[in-house]
Amino acid sequence: MTMLVDVNAVRALLDKEGCGSFIGGIESLIEQTADRLAEAYRRWDEFAKGSRIGIHSVRGDIELMPVADHHYYAFKYVTGFPQNPERNLPNVMAFGALSSVETGKPLFLCELAIATAIRTAAMSALVARHLAREDSRSMAIIGCGAQCDFQILAFNALLGIEKFYLYDVDAAAMNKVVENLSEGEIEFVLPDRSINDSQASIRKVLERHPDIVTTVTADKTNATILTADMIRPGMHINAVGGDAPGKTELDKKILELEHARVVVEFEEQTRAEGEVQQMPPDFPVIEFHEIIRGIKPGRENSRQVTIHDSVGFALSDYAVLRLLYDKTQQYKLGTVVDLVPSETPDVKNLFRKVRRGDNEIGLSCDSPHAAGTRPLRYFRG
Amino acid sequence: MTMLVDVNAVRALLDKEGCGSFIGGIESLIEQTADRLAEAYRRWDEFAKGSRIGIHSVRGDIELMPVADHHYYAFKYVTGFPQNPERNLPNVMAFGALSSVETGKPLFLCELAIATAIRTAAMSALVARHLAREDSRSMAIIGCGAQCDFQILAFNALLGIEKFYLYDVDAAAMNKVVENLSEGEIEFVLPDRSINDSQASIRKVLERHPDIVTTVTADKTNATILTADMIRPGMHINAVGGDAPGKTELDKKILELEHARVVVEFEEQTRAEGEVQQMPPDFPVIEFHEIIRGIKPGRENSRQVTIHDSVGFALSDYAVLRLLYDKTQQYKLGTVVDLVPSETPDVKNLFRKVRRGDNEIGLSCDSPHAAGTRPLRYFRG
Repeated sequence: MTMLVDVNAVRALLDKEGCGSFIGGIESLIEQTADRLAEAYRRWDEFAKGSRIGIHSVRGDIELMPVADHHYYAFKYVTGFPQNPERNLPNVMAFGALSSVETGKPLFLCELAIATAIRTAAMSALVARHLAREDSRSMAIIGCGAQCDFQILAFNALLGIEKFYLYDVDAAAMNKVVENLSEGEIEFVLPDRSINDSQASIRKVLERHPDIVTTVTADKTNATILTADMIRPGMHINAVGGDAPGKTELDKKILELEHARVVVEFEEQTRAEGEVQQMPPDFPVIEFHEIIRGIKPGRENSRQVTIHDSVGFALSDYAVLRLLYDKTQQYKLGTVVDLVPSETPDVKNLFRKVRRGDNEIGLSCDSPHAAGTRPLRYFRG
Repeated sequence: MTMLVDVNAVRALLDKEGCGSFIGGIESLIEQTADRLAEAYRRWDEFAKGSRIGIHSVRGDIELMPVADHHYYAFKYVTGFPQNPERNLPNVMAFGALSSVETGKPLFLCELAIATAIRTAAMSALVARHLAREDSRSMAIIGCGAQCDFQILAFNALLGIEKFYLYDVDAAAMNKVVENLSEGEIEFVLPDRSINDSQASIRKVLERHPDIVTTVTADKTNATILTADMIRPGMHINAVGGDAPGKTELDKKILELEHARVVVEFEEQTRAEGEVQQMPPDFPVIEFHEIIRGIKPGRENSRQVTIHDSVGFALSDYAVLRLLYDKTQQYKLGTVVDLVPSETPDVKNLFRKVRRGDNEIGLSCDSPHAAGTRPLRYFRG
């Protein structure tokens, strides 16, 4: 028996956690997620890990992200289809499973779209706690889509950031954020509406000297959201939107800034998917687990530019799946389904299971070279 | 909404197809599967494909196998835990999903253990139709586990093989096969019980000159089930059991036999997982799609030794998922689950979905270098 936690059960879980009634409920869930992320990344060496495998078509991507320690195997199925909202479907749809590494049996199958948003924001803030200056008080956010609200709450909860400079090409997206978070004690600064050029607008935002800059745009292209001349000493850049081959947000000159420190989740995957896909293979990066385990320092001085080249790694989904599994058990949420057979005698005789009317049937990555026709591509991150 | 076809719905489907009442029902399902496999492999160039990614522990393997054409994305989750039967759990547990390549939405989630057994047997027989001698009438099967019965029915249905020489170290396994298939007009020849040595027993079986030899043993080791001196001119070898790094069944000298023709599903994956993992990277192999599309010949003459180095490829699971999807729709089997949100307005405002009590939440490898501690290994086939 596998526990299925569907869209409605996730909704019920969020209500139990107080997310429906006040922002503090969501911030608390983000903090709990950050704790689980920290715990998982500290145990880095206990995990078998690799890059995700994705299949890309003109319309979007579908990726599978597996990872395991000696107790649990986890995988996530996640989409990115930027035109989906035109059909009233979300860009990101996700579900995942936790299995026993003793038997391979799937224990838990869970809808994961909000969980993906929460873990991405929690990971951003967790990494920033090690990389942003301790006196950071303000953050600019370029891109006010679905992930933006969660980023704000995460940086508010984990780093005490209270002032946010928003920018999006779509004014409605910015208004959405302000309205969604109006009850909190968060200060929003909207961009000068008289400027029509998006590059100029972003430059203006950066001239306000935010301590942290988060880029979280959705375009599936090599974009140049930030250029090196916009970056000030001591800034922390949380680059979230560049997360697939051919999808970046930073001018490569930012990565080349003297003493800049680039931190990634998992080097192999980020070299294919992150901002550093623009750099040669020997460009130095630090894996976050090295910092949280004290093997390497985080920020070294107050003038260093730090960059979190975030793409989203399976280990983060493992951490959030474990949290959701624990919480749904605690609240007794979900439905039992026979996704695979329960324990049953005579398992070796598969054929008999086909013949007899047992009530219980009892059955008892980017590819190194892309195959298939374009524009459908198989890739391994 | 996603259609969930669980263990019991698969059971109902098998009954609708007549599998419960007579062997012909199962043979018919195998034939229909073979037709779908042939159709899929003929469309080879339309698919984005790559090797599966697996995570290996001491106890077993869990693998994810994705593939897609321009209409459907398919993936399978499949285990191999040889000690599971001691806990009354099957060695192979499997489920999979079909998604729309237009939106990424999972349409169909299905239990797949029996389906995996059927597609493996159907693929073996389909390939053998192109590689075995046309006058083939007998087959030896080394290994009488869960897959054996299905192999027999597939070769009986698709190639008209009527005489089967069985061998297994466990006499009970052989008796199971004979009992399961007693109603059919299939002739079984059991090995000489006076021989205790398994290598000598297999040699005796091969001395009976079977036209085809199927090896389908389960040990997770580099075994030597067959040696080159056992192989006669004109034989077709269907090597099913060697399907993971470090898990092979054939002495490499068999692969080196003069004029031997080695056919694989997908070269990249088989070089890592199949019998040819024993050979240098330039060892010649033919992908099956080249044969079924008429690009390369199958068997070239009556004395050639042909080898199907079978490991199990995602495209075969795509084919069986499509068949099961069509059939469960036809029979109206399965349950609707909200694995991801249904169409809903305001999809861009993910945050609001967390806050408001909408009834509808509406969120609307082997890795090139293995990471992690041994013996938990991450691999990409």
